[in-house]
Amino acid sequence: MLFMATESGVAMDMAPELLASGCRIVDLSADFRLREARIWEKWYGKPHGAADLLAEAVYGLAEWARGPLVKARLVANPGCYPTSVLLAMAPLARDGLLQDGLVINSLSGTSGGGRTPRTDMMFSENAGSARAYGTSGHRHLPEIEQGVRFFGASPAISFLPHLIPASRGIFSTIHLGRGDAALVHESLMGVYHNEPFIDVMPMGSQPATNMVLGSNMCRIAVHATPGGAVIVLSVIDNLLKGAAGQAVQNMNIMFGLQETSGLEAVALMP
Amino acid sequence: MLFMATESGVAMDMAPELLASGCRIVDLSADFRLREARIWEKWYGKPHGAADLLAEAVYGLAEWARGPLVKARLVANPGCYPTSVLLAMAPLARDGLLQDGLVINSLSGTSGGGRTPRTDMMFSENAGSARAYGTSGHRHLPEIEQGVRFFGASPAISFLPHLIPASRGIFSTIHLGRGDAALVHESLMGVYHNEPFIDVMPMGSQPATNMVLGSNMCRIAVHATPGGAVIVLSVIDNLLKGAAGQAVQNMNIMFGLQETSGLEAVALMP
Amino acid sequence: MLFMATESGVAMDMAPELLASGCRIVDLSADFRLREARIWEKWYGKPHGAADLLAEAVYGLAEWARGPLVKARLVANPGCYPTSVLLAMAPLARDGLLQDGLVINSLSGTSGGGRTPRTDMMFSENAGSARAYGTSGHRHLPEIEQGVRFFGASPAISFLPHLIPASRGIFSTIHLGRGDAALVHESLMGVYHNEPFIDVMPMGSQPATNMVLGSNMCRIAVHATPGGAVIVLSVIDNLLKGAAGQAVQNMNIMFGLQETSGLEAVALMP
Amino acid sequence: MLFMATESGVAMDMAPELLASGCRIVDLSADFRLREARIWEKWYGKPHGAADLLAEAVYGLAEWARGPLVKARLVANPGCYPTSVLLAMAPLARDGLLQDGLVINSLSGTSGGGRTPRTDMMFSENAGSARAYGTSGHRHLPEIEQGVRFFGASPAISFLPHLIPASRGIFSTIHLGRGDAALVHESLMGVYHNEPFIDVMPMGSQPATNMVLGSNMCRIAVHATPGGAVIVLSVIDNLLKGAAGQAVQNMNIMFGLQETSGLEAVALMP
Repeated sequence: MLFMATESGVAMDMAPELLASGCRIVDLSADFRLREARIWEKWYGKPHGAADLLAEAVYGLAEWARGPLVKARLVANPGCYPTSVLLAMAPLARDGLLQDGLVINSLSGTSGGGRTPRTDMMFSENAGSARAYGTSGHRHLPEIEQGVRFFGASPAISFLPHLIPASRGIFSTIHLGRGDAALVHESLMGVYHNEPFIDVMPMGSQPATNMVLGSNMCRIAVHATPGGAVIVLSVIDNLLKGAAGQAVQNMNIMFGLQETSGLEAVALMP
Repeated sequence: MLFMATESGVAMDMAPELLASGCRIVDLSADFRLREARIWEKWYGKPHGAADLLAEAVYGLAEWARGPLVKARLVANPGCYPTSVLLAMAPLARDGLLQDGLVINSLSGTSGGGRTPRTDMMFSENAGSARAYGTSGHRHLPEIEQGVRFFGASPAISFLPHLIPASRGIFSTIHLGRGDAALVHESLMGVYHNEPFIDVMPMGSQPATNMVLGSNMCRIAVHATPGGAVIVLSVIDNLLKGAAGQAVQNMNIMFGLQETSGLEAVALMP
Repeated sequence: MLFMATESGVAMDMAPELLASGCRIVDLSADFRLREARIWEKWYGKPHGAADLLAEAVYGLAEWARGPLVKARLVANPGCYPTSVLLAMAPLARDGLLQDGLVINSLSGTSGGGRTPRTDMMFSENAGSARAYGTSGHRHLPEIEQGVRFFGASPAISFLPHLIPASRGIFSTIHLGRGDAALVHESLMGVYHNEPFIDVMPMGSQPATNMVLGSNMCRIAVHATPGGAVIVLSVIDNLLKGAAGQAVQNMNIMFGLQETSGLEAVALMP
Repeated sequence: MLFMATESGVAMDMAPELLASGCRIVDLSADFRLREARIWEKWYGKPHGAADLLAEAVYGLAEWARGPLVKARLVANPGCYPTSVLLAMAPLARDGLLQDGLVINSLSGTSGGGRTPRTDMMFSENAGSARAYGTSGHRHLPEIEQGVRFFGASPAISFLPHLIPASRGIFSTIHLGRGDAALVHESLMGVYHNEPFIDVMPMGSQPATNMVLGSNMCRIAVHATPGGAVIVLSVIDNLLKGAAGQAVQNMNIMFGLQETSGLEAVALMP
């Protein structure tokens, strides 16, 4: 068992040998998240060094991959934004509740940017300030598109991530357009009502990222707007359910351990 | 000349007498922002006490109201979200560049909530956390709809405000759907290239709220997404261009003063 | 067993009856922290309603009260500032390393102020700002003085708490005056080297509050200044080691449970 | 006229030639702040390249250097911590109100660390956290010591700077030991009551850094503790009164301009 929490490129270099030696891998980088080498290479701007492994890699959105995970040798741990978005959209895609023209607006704490020092990630540059980024295209968009397609839908998606002055947490606001909020809520409840790490809140609830910080939880709320549109809100801790927490959850499933082992911390709030 | 920076209700009670005595009013509350008493009463949940003044009140989106402001007795200073949104959308509405199904996602610092103590506005509840609010309908939506209609468009609009852990600043992300970003940029540049308080940034620029904090500026950027959609970003300081700053700007216009008087502070960054 | 996490006054009203009915109490309020009713009444400004219980109450600075806690019926859980300060100063008081004229400067997150809404505790009032408070005398001063005396020293102490723009965490800077930093470090190491919740860091280490947030840890560092003075730094999470965490630790000791039960979460950083 | 806002070392290299060409310099670096080359070299760890200019350099604590500034060719703009501390202590040193064993505890926003990217200055590392630094000796200590000596006192000083999760602002807490708070307040009022940039607040006032952010103000408050000690609190914006603002003020004096020119912005609060 090996976690590979690396810059893109390292995992693909090391994976073949590690697998050959009997390791099972949960890769925290983006190397094996996209199934088509062509698309990976377009978004990551270089040749994929282990394209033959892409077909085998299991996309580790834990609640939706339990079967394949049991025998998986190579697991691609999902990105933080895709985790927050796909957990909310997978049931809707499956149940035919997604229309064309989805708009996803996500807010993230700064820890998603890693620890490599950069002037634009310094405290003084971000304190009290908000900004969008990835406006020319964020690498998590093809991952979201692939995921939604996997669940049976293929809407055009406009996705924009933003940085807010918080260290942790992702808040995704998914505008579904006109629709029936009750149906959307039922679809989510039907799938997730027994999940230990997903809380579909009562209709009209107000999630906040501090409700999940420090925990492996994803909390999802459904809202009907005065104009008849449906908005789905999804919050996670980007470093736990959006990264290391989900990796542990995947490992637990792979090895037949209790799925919640090591992941039972509640959120740290306030 | 009188600023009325009050809770909704006070201005409408006092305005008739004040106008009769010769005062000219810039009202910072929401009492005179909506032109139809019926709509005002629906959103504010009580009878309007001075409905006969609604037709006279000038909606003080300064750059677009200079003519009427000169003689105005009663000016409704726009709300903070509508200011950030309408400055970006007015030229596009006029130029026929708005399609149906607009999605507006706005982020605001907490100072927009005023100083009345509430547990949910305390430091500990908001530090490091983000949340949406007004999900069942925010009073700035009818103001945005009225404004866009005034400029000649009537798209369905989905608007959701969010609170982020900052004291000041509004960041509005306006998803226009598929379109021609260059045309959108041209439309904005054509109108605003000489405005002292509006900066239409070069195509693809990255505004942040700390670029405008402490100033009366609105900065607007246009982006084309990889999927062919157009996104417009607009940032203001909610307490200046979104409130007191615009009120002073309106007063300057009303009294024939230099429009920038008292408003020349640059942003405080970092 | 009962936790009483209440405003001052409630615990003293209810304690006699509860004890009579066989309850054992860990009181999170300040009602039983000071042993002398006279001093309590001076600082809290009202008569003490259960002064006869003061002699019995065990001051629950857990690492220093294990013996008495085993049989205690009534435990006064220490205040947040006194916990951070006394854990650092108890060994030094006992070993004769405290001189007169101690200066203690503490920084606290805003959660120490509770959840009662107050304008001066709102997000907008505290974001990006620092201030001192309790300048005319903070109720934790007599608690610190009593503790230091208990361990055998009675220096004059100047204590000033400050609020910083963080939700959690206490950072106490204790200026000991001229002295031998190595002796101070040895004194602390000698007592605490096996404690699960106290980390005496290597000489010259730099603690930060985010090293303990979400955990029951106290981390202590010793520094020698260029001028020959000694400074001791102590950090805790005010809501855990400074409140509920220490209460659980005390309960574990009272009932013969594993002292670390329920308290093994590591700090949430970043 | 030249501002030299540079890393230590650059100003001393360029100053001789610039002065020869007739420039007048306000140096924002630390190159000319200490009058003795020996002390400078000890704290900055390298030879001083223009030691012959040290005697000529005017230490630009503006309110105390107006005479020398008028003809000054080379002005050393004071450091941010020394400005906050010396403005409060200069009158007290002159009036014999400083005893031995001063303890100065200062809090600073992160912008004092400059914009060079460092992991320990990233947003995620500092959000919600406080820490001390410079524990082995901060370069502003000899500057404070030199200043206090200049005003006629030579107490032993223990100075410790801390970083708090704010972008701007310095909060200095100066523990004077036992004394007469009223005399201290009078001493400050006597000197500063007419100063445009120094506000000696009424006895017992509570300054906060957000009262000065964005302005060139220093606000000072005096407190008597229950134990009979005196504490002086001093707040400035480290980037204005603690750097560029004071540099402009010095320049105004040097050139016979209105001393407040360009410095009249009020604080940005909240």
